[in-house]
Amino acid sequence: MTKVDLRQKVVSENESLARANRARFAEQGTLVLNLVSSPGSGKTSLIEETAEQLKARWKMLVLTGDLMTENDARRIRSRGVEAIQITTGEACHLDARMVADNLLGAQGEHYDLVVIENVGNLVCPATFDLGEDLKVLLVSVAEGDDKPLKYPPMVRASSVLVVSKTDLVPYTDSDPERLAGNALRINPDLTVFKLSSKTKEGLDQWMGWLESRLAAKRQPPAK
Amino acid sequence: MTKVDLRQKVVSENESLARANRARFAEQGTLVLNLVSSPGSGKTSLIEETAEQLKARWKMLVLTGDLMTENDARRIRSRGVEAIQITTGEACHLDARMVADNLLGAQGEHYDLVVIENVGNLVCPATFDLGEDLKVLLVSVAEGDDKPLKYPPMVRASSVLVVSKTDLVPYTDSDPERLAGNALRINPDLTVFKLSSKTKEGLDQWMGWLESRLAAKRQPPAK
Repeated sequence: MTKVDLRQKVVSENESLARANRARFAEQGTLVLNLVSSPGSGKTSLIEETAEQLKARWKMLVLTGDLMTENDARRIRSRGVEAIQITTGEACHLDARMVADNLLGAQGEHYDLVVIENVGNLVCPATFDLGEDLKVLLVSVAEGDDKPLKYPPMVRASSVLVVSKTDLVPYTDSDPERLAGNALRINPDLTVFKLSSKTKEGLDQWMGWLESRLAAKRQPPAK
Repeated sequence: MTKVDLRQKVVSENESLARANRARFAEQGTLVLNLVSSPGSGKTSLIEETAEQLKARWKMLVLTGDLMTENDARRIRSRGVEAIQITTGEACHLDARMVADNLLGAQGEHYDLVVIENVGNLVCPATFDLGEDLKVLLVSVAEGDDKPLKYPPMVRASSVLVVSKTDLVPYTDSDPERLAGNALRINPDLTVFKLSSKTKEGLDQWMGWLESRLAAKRQPPAK
């Protein structure tokens, strides 16, 4: 068996598990976001801010992936939201089985929103569907506005781009407009937000969009 | 053949190619650095500054890896140093074969220093020896000082830690000392530099260390 064959086999096994996850989430009317980015782009901070604003009205669960440490789950729990840490050891991405296995403990519970924080990696998570509704790609201005051009598979796989850490714009050479433009050249269908979890600039637009997606999940599909 | 078996086979094939690269570099007295980091930690900027300072006295070649674009090779060539871009398509790391293949064109040339800029990824490149003397791990202060704890395989695989973008310290919650301390808890043998390629703060220590490594390569080993 060649390397390519095996890779295809791993990906296709993952796809059937992802389909099962997706069916289960759909049945329960749960909105599922898969947050992907480089290490340190601000996924956990954005989840913390999101949790603070949503937790009173929507039932929320966070699955957070890292090679090691429980730090992110602890940070999120401190905001009063349920969080499960998945440690992958050496693996550079979460997969559909890890998501399914970690939801078993939460069986019976209904969630309006499941946020999956993937391992910080701008390559591997692009290939592994977890059964989410949408991949949300974060790129911080500190990484440089050329990054979408260098990692096109992740940009193509995502539905939403969050240009994060905009508070750092004055101290870097990055232009958030150019960053977004570079991403839109690869994937013109991206919904784009620019925000800072630190200063809260731009958070309202993100929250408004997320609330409208949550509300849509509650509605039966139009005939 | 299981997933694990195949992974081991791929890694072990890579290891024999890496040994061949290492033997060739040793024979030629070439110092080889493998720069690894998240996307946007400042590898290319550090190489540009290093090239500016070394190029008059040492013959240097840069191999730079990305999924897509020739941007980094262009940036480095603009500093008057030879650079070869390796585009990996979907692969999250360089491997020993890519390095060997791309050195063929440079056959016959003698280089004092080969700098390999790996794909921006804090996971995959840890497992793939390229035949380098040393892995140099960059972590920018903008990524957060917890990152070494979350990506221990890369910290263990590296010999040098560069805490980069220290000019951003006043605008982030990161403490460069804590970042270095977290890395040293995992790998106490790390040589640590803290620097900013933008303000040049700390560059002298890095350059001094690099010059001493280059000089050592020129000396015959002590009897």
